[in-house]
Amino acid sequence: MATIKERLFITLIFGFLLPHTKCYDPTWSSLDSRPLPSWYDEAKLGIFIHWGVFSVPSFSSEWFWWNWQGQPTPAVAEFMSANYRPDFTYADFAKDFKTEFFDATQWAQLFQSSGAKYIVLVSKHHEGFTNWPSKYSFNWNSKDVGPNRDIVGELMNATRRHTDLRFGLYHSLFEWFHPLYLADKKSGFKTQDFVNQKSLPELYELVNNYKPEVVWSDGDWEAPDTYWKAKEFLAWLYTDSPVKDTVVVNDRWGSNISCHHGGVYTCGDRYNPGVLQKHKWVNAMTIDKYSWGFRRNARLSDYLTIEELLQTFVITVSCGGNMLMNVGPPSHGHITPIYEERLRQLGSWLKVTGEGIYSSKPWTYQNDTLTKNVWYTSKSSSSGTDVYAFIFDWPSTSVLSLGLPKTSAATTISLLGYQELFSYNTRQPTGVDIVIPAIPFTKLPCQWLWVFKITAVEN
Amino acid sequence: MATIKERLFITLIFGFLLPHTKCYDPTWSSLDSRPLPSWYDEAKLGIFIHWGVFSVPSFSSEWFWWNWQGQPTPAVAEFMSANYRPDFTYADFAKDFKTEFFDATQWAQLFQSSGAKYIVLVSKHHEGFTNWPSKYSFNWNSKDVGPNRDIVGELMNATRRHTDLRFGLYHSLFEWFHPLYLADKKSGFKTQDFVNQKSLPELYELVNNYKPEVVWSDGDWEAPDTYWKAKEFLAWLYTDSPVKDTVVVNDRWGSNISCHHGGVYTCGDRYNPGVLQKHKWVNAMTIDKYSWGFRRNARLSDYLTIEELLQTFVITVSCGGNMLMNVGPPSHGHITPIYEERLRQLGSWLKVTGEGIYSSKPWTYQNDTLTKNVWYTSKSSSSGTDVYAFIFDWPSTSVLSLGLPKTSAATTISLLGYQELFSYNTRQPTGVDIVIPAIPFTKLPCQWLWVFKITAVEN
Amino acid sequence: MATIKERLFITLIFGFLLPHTKCYDPTWSSLDSRPLPSWYDEAKLGIFIHWGVFSVPSFSSEWFWWNWQGQPTPAVAEFMSANYRPDFTYADFAKDFKTEFFDATQWAQLFQSSGAKYIVLVSKHHEGFTNWPSKYSFNWNSKDVGPNRDIVGELMNATRRHTDLRFGLYHSLFEWFHPLYLADKKSGFKTQDFVNQKSLPELYELVNNYKPEVVWSDGDWEAPDTYWKAKEFLAWLYTDSPVKDTVVVNDRWGSNISCHHGGVYTCGDRYNPGVLQKHKWVNAMTIDKYSWGFRRNARLSDYLTIEELLQTFVITVSCGGNMLMNVGPPSHGHITPIYEERLRQLGSWLKVTGEGIYSSKPWTYQNDTLTKNVWYTSKSSSSGTDVYAFIFDWPSTSVLSLGLPKTSAATTISLLGYQELFSYNTRQPTGVDIVIPAIPFTKLPCQWLWVFKITAVEN
Amino acid sequence: MATIKERLFITLIFGFLLPHTKCYDPTWSSLDSRPLPSWYDEAKLGIFIHWGVFSVPSFSSEWFWWNWQGQPTPAVAEFMSANYRPDFTYADFAKDFKTEFFDATQWAQLFQSSGAKYIVLVSKHHEGFTNWPSKYSFNWNSKDVGPNRDIVGELMNATRRHTDLRFGLYHSLFEWFHPLYLADKKSGFKTQDFVNQKSLPELYELVNNYKPEVVWSDGDWEAPDTYWKAKEFLAWLYTDSPVKDTVVVNDRWGSNISCHHGGVYTCGDRYNPGVLQKHKWVNAMTIDKYSWGFRRNARLSDYLTIEELLQTFVITVSCGGNMLMNVGPPSHGHITPIYEERLRQLGSWLKVTGEGIYSSKPWTYQNDTLTKNVWYTSKSSSSGTDVYAFIFDWPSTSVLSLGLPKTSAATTISLLGYQELFSYNTRQPTGVDIVIPAIPFTKLPCQWLWVFKITAVEN
Repeated sequence: MATIKERLFITLIFGFLLPHTKCYDPTWSSLDSRPLPSWYDEAKLGIFIHWGVFSVPSFSSEWFWWNWQGQPTPAVAEFMSANYRPDFTYADFAKDFKTEFFDATQWAQLFQSSGAKYIVLVSKHHEGFTNWPSKYSFNWNSKDVGPNRDIVGELMNATRRHTDLRFGLYHSLFEWFHPLYLADKKSGFKTQDFVNQKSLPELYELVNNYKPEVVWSDGDWEAPDTYWKAKEFLAWLYTDSPVKDTVVVNDRWGSNISCHHGGVYTCGDRYNPGVLQKHKWVNAMTIDKYSWGFRRNARLSDYLTIEELLQTFVITVSCGGNMLMNVGPPSHGHITPIYEERLRQLGSWLKVTGEGIYSSKPWTYQNDTLTKNVWYTSKSSSSGTDVYAFIFDWPSTSVLSLGLPKTSAATTISLLGYQELFSYNTRQPTGVDIVIPAIPFTKLPCQWLWVFKITAVEN
Repeated sequence: MATIKERLFITLIFGFLLPHTKCYDPTWSSLDSRPLPSWYDEAKLGIFIHWGVFSVPSFSSEWFWWNWQGQPTPAVAEFMSANYRPDFTYADFAKDFKTEFFDATQWAQLFQSSGAKYIVLVSKHHEGFTNWPSKYSFNWNSKDVGPNRDIVGELMNATRRHTDLRFGLYHSLFEWFHPLYLADKKSGFKTQDFVNQKSLPELYELVNNYKPEVVWSDGDWEAPDTYWKAKEFLAWLYTDSPVKDTVVVNDRWGSNISCHHGGVYTCGDRYNPGVLQKHKWVNAMTIDKYSWGFRRNARLSDYLTIEELLQTFVITVSCGGNMLMNVGPPSHGHITPIYEERLRQLGSWLKVTGEGIYSSKPWTYQNDTLTKNVWYTSKSSSSGTDVYAFIFDWPSTSVLSLGLPKTSAATTISLLGYQELFSYNTRQPTGVDIVIPAIPFTKLPCQWLWVFKITAVEN
Repeated sequence: MATIKERLFITLIFGFLLPHTKCYDPTWSSLDSRPLPSWYDEAKLGIFIHWGVFSVPSFSSEWFWWNWQGQPTPAVAEFMSANYRPDFTYADFAKDFKTEFFDATQWAQLFQSSGAKYIVLVSKHHEGFTNWPSKYSFNWNSKDVGPNRDIVGELMNATRRHTDLRFGLYHSLFEWFHPLYLADKKSGFKTQDFVNQKSLPELYELVNNYKPEVVWSDGDWEAPDTYWKAKEFLAWLYTDSPVKDTVVVNDRWGSNISCHHGGVYTCGDRYNPGVLQKHKWVNAMTIDKYSWGFRRNARLSDYLTIEELLQTFVITVSCGGNMLMNVGPPSHGHITPIYEERLRQLGSWLKVTGEGIYSSKPWTYQNDTLTKNVWYTSKSSSSGTDVYAFIFDWPSTSVLSLGLPKTSAATTISLLGYQELFSYNTRQPTGVDIVIPAIPFTKLPCQWLWVFKITAVEN
Repeated sequence: MATIKERLFITLIFGFLLPHTKCYDPTWSSLDSRPLPSWYDEAKLGIFIHWGVFSVPSFSSEWFWWNWQGQPTPAVAEFMSANYRPDFTYADFAKDFKTEFFDATQWAQLFQSSGAKYIVLVSKHHEGFTNWPSKYSFNWNSKDVGPNRDIVGELMNATRRHTDLRFGLYHSLFEWFHPLYLADKKSGFKTQDFVNQKSLPELYELVNNYKPEVVWSDGDWEAPDTYWKAKEFLAWLYTDSPVKDTVVVNDRWGSNISCHHGGVYTCGDRYNPGVLQKHKWVNAMTIDKYSWGFRRNARLSDYLTIEELLQTFVITVSCGGNMLMNVGPPSHGHITPIYEERLRQLGSWLKVTGEGIYSSKPWTYQNDTLTKNVWYTSKSSSSGTDVYAFIFDWPSTSVLSLGLPKTSAATTISLLGYQELFSYNTRQPTGVDIVIPAIPFTKLPCQWLWVFKITAVEN
């Protein structure tokens, strides 16, 4: 044992070397004061994965159960009556969640190839089914029924062994039909049995066992943060948990908390304000425009084109956000080619354009005044600021006029992925006319969303 | 509102008319002091029903899960590998617990036709699956998965509407694989999460919702009564619960409690000591000698013959016990004919012999000294004691010699179900030789276990 | 090659030693002239087994498919809509015909223990599913779908290896829904595609592969024997087949053939005319009064009591018939205890009474004139005729009066299974009064249907 | 009735107006003399659809059954043992062929949007499962088990009602495991039971009921055309069938027939000889490079890119072939987005380039001598021949040199989908240098495989 003196000495010596962990109180003022771990803003892109029992009917959306028995919709009611015996229950689906083709390493490598820097796996959605063998979800978890596997554990291991992606977890606080939750709700959230016995123990179990570097909370909106004991959990997470130094959380910790407190702001699903935000935010969006969970009957037009996807990404990054792009795997566990295609398209694009994305900062301006659909990011450099102009459409004339960048004598203009510099004419008071030569189709570095790099910008 | 004075008055007046409910403390001395509600000893015969997810594999026994994954037995392991995919889990069985032929009224009427006076349904066995929509067993109960029905509720209603049977419930305190239980166990039962969140709330829920007049506890043996908070539950049950006046419990409330404290003593399964017991006890036995749950592959020889069944019953009653005879229905819910046959045989026998069974008391002696396989019960009558001698074998000679009953001048001897009196000769110092005439086969009141009634016995 | 002379010589020499096989023509006069192989009449009792895809729904009867989609009944329609998805087809049931507990040796030994001398297994019922891997029923047979076993082969082998039962097969000529049959039917049975491609090839395949000694035909009634090519098949079966010397067939070979031509007459199901028949006949009956296939929801009262069963048997044998008693196994293949009980009861009874059954002949009279429910069989003996009187009810008085047997000086009267002779008084002109002593219950040789043997009867 | 004279008259009058149907003999010389119905060569593109019970395991390929139990492969054996009970059979899969999302109109419209002019649906693959309620495949067809639908009929109706696509059918002559086929094979194809009872009746049934305008035969290779009675069938098909005037068949009608006789030559799967063929041929190819049936675990790289697909198409058409591109739908019936994407990409490309494809003829030369990856088609016009040069890669310099077209004074050069004419310089003795201006990316008519139209070519 060390004496107090010795401990003091050790603290003094190592306090400068080791990450200096602060103690956080369970108050929003304390919690909100925590700086965002730097990796997160640099990463820009994460992959979200929605997988669960809802992947078995794989119809309508991951809200299938609710759309069937919570607030019934005709489509789901008809689907059930057309295809299942009358007494079929939602939990009866779990047996067919077989995951026979699930290969966590394959997933992790595919996610990495998209250019993403982290992933966020749904550990439990509103249905309450835990994708890990939780102590608090007996016979309603992926080890006890259906897959017979620890899905969270397998993906955590594969991610950490085979990629440099960071591993994160989504967790739904509430459960549509959990009787303890319903009882608490009936009490006006005066009782907290569900929180004490289910949601909180699960969160601690998840963090202690899987050490996620993102904790993405959801399902908070019906009850206040005090009901969820969110502040206490976050104080522990920031101060004492095994991921206290690097973990990033979001803002869904109780009614009226989202967009106001917590870590990264999500505000709403597919949030994309289009203007610069003061607080770090994230755009959680889906490739399937209508669902986070896999839909067996989705049509091509239900999926974002790669152009739509990249445009959303660029606007998001330009305005200070990260994008968390969702993948919905089928119940058999093999990610479908259309998802793989979008991920690989994104990855190939980032191979060319990543310089303007990763570790970039929002510029003074987000989009251009002269030419539509031009969005900016920036990076500091020794000679001032380098500005990246993302253009959605290739110029149809031989000049691309940008209204905002103020060139300096040192300014050069290039196209990411293309060898030669572009000549340009400076506009007054600001702006620049870039001369677009006849670049043959085969020499274009990519086919969607080109990026001009304008160095040594003065504004 | 009544004043204290008024209330006192009311108490004084009605205290003599209404059942006088005592207050019980959570101590064994207090709890053990409660008199057994009289209906129970009078009833003598109850029907036990084991039904659950184990009824789906319907192989080995209701301990199937344990025999597969707790302490594996080769037979169950082979059954699984021969008939199911490798990743099949126990909870995967639940979907096929379809109960499509379950008709609670049919059950209740069948049970009544057996001559039983009460039933005890397994509400939850060691597998943890609740046969009612428990708030504490989300997605592992008969409403959420499989049957899509409240089995306990349906049988309760049918029993009370269509029969005069009393309705009771079996409940397992522990669950083989419940993670909270396993954690408590690991702590040496210092933590009580499982009790607080699962077993106790369930018990209260059961009693409040279904008002069972038997609470048959089980699965207690690994932990002390203090862990289970058994005394507190019983104090409430006896003092404040909706069944406080009529409920009967057993003795499985913690390690070393069985056979020492509680209500009716069960001691072990199929307990049948063969000598008079000081404390009211019950013989919980099975028609299938090897299983409480239905076994699809049971052979005829695995079932008790009606003779074996009746002999057990008679010895049990003679020694002061009740018999709780078990029925194991298949997963489809229609009780199989061999069970129905035993129940109806028992009922037809009780139609003839019930006088010597229902409301009878053990006699001074339990079995005879001169003739083997003769067992006694008794009833007080105005002219002394009426003794019922149950003979397992019909006399092969013309005299049946009994060594114990001391006849009086008023003594008559008859055969239950048979019109004429029998002549007899008194033996000294006690005993009687009954003259057995040539009763044609067709006039025998039954074909198994005949009962001689010897009135006005002096000892 | 042998010359005609040599062949004549061989015929002369061996004709006396070897079974003399006659050549039968495909005409009824020729076929009907074949003597019944002697084993059959001596056997008296066979076991019929109905097993097939209908054993999966196991509801209504083995006519389930017809009752659902042929001539729909409300019960079956409701069963389907309550328990299956709307598009469920009959053939979808086949997958769940798992036979996981089917042990052919166990079956064979159980059948033998019933006292039966032969069995008749349904090889194919009207549903068309063949219980053997038929070349003519691709993917609608027990090897290709469901059991993955040759059921006919397994039972044939077990029967022949482990018992001395003879092995027979039931075969349905028509199939409710076979499109070739329906097309032939539509043509007024002018086309014979179904017969040429399905029913006849199957019959030859069955006989050649499994050598059944009973060929029980069914499903003949809609079409004439000429359509079925029945006479041609029988001529081959009697003349050239591997079972030509011992095979026994029934009479269901075309409309208006039953009860008129063929081997043993069946006339209708559960045929029991109650008077002596000139032609050997058989009573095909069921233990379940309402179904040949297993019904999961059968009640005890749906099954014949052992008394009813024995009475039917005795009347049948008395009038010259055999009884073919049906067992319906569940889809899992383990015969249920109630069936086992009836079979073993029958076997135990035949242990006592078999002398009056096996190899017996109908007597001059079938039932008695003085006492109701007394039926006779007989056997020749050196001292005349021994008559067996089967009494359904044990005499309620001390004299049993029979109106028909004419005793001789040598006549003795005994009770099968009982040691001592009975005294009697001869009645005039015929008949006898048997003195019934007070036999204690325990000394009665059985509890149902007792048999008096009256030797050296003169009429 | 008309007299011979009258009939002669009618023939004379109408013979010039009505299609003049010739009588074909069952000889190859006669059959091969039939001219190919003109629609077929004009169409160029068809869609092939492989759907059946193999779509349920949806693993390995449509040869799953063979790879499991014919000539077993480790991958399939492991898949089965990992995911199914040991006794699972192939036919057991049929129940799960649910087709719950199959919408024939949606399919037909999607196929039309690809630019295809006809479709060829697998009516029955080597597994023998018929996608229509065949009279010759009792309980192994899509009405009797699984879908409970007439798939062929639904798609035929949808195609004819909602599109102008022509409807064709694939049919496998042999079946891997059909016992009649195996018996015929064992006989050295001397017996023809399978042909007489199964394959031929099916073909007649298909043609008469669904009137397919393509009959694509397969599974012929093990036996000669005489075994299959192919010539007789074709003579009927060409002379008397309801599609005699427009039907197109392929060449798989017996061993050594393919590539030598019949209608369109297929030679082998994915046949693409790369040089002009004398006889009309077709390239049956797959989007999934490794399977015709849907594979749930296919990766993106297993699918053809649109570039690969178009290149194959162009080479095929250039050399005189049609392309029949295969789609493999999942068992639920909704075509997956990756397939939809390829189909729509192809359709969008044909919108631009169709002029050079539909109704085109092979040119004198197929590919260019100066520039690699340039392929030609041609059309006659009033001013000579218009030649279409398909270039796989956009020119990387400002001149595209073609070595073969000999320009005339009237020659103009344009790019399909692009407004302006191109200037060019004639080469000697043949060939042309096309001047490629700086066309901005956004003005390119497509992104893959551009087509130059060179009018009034002299060679």
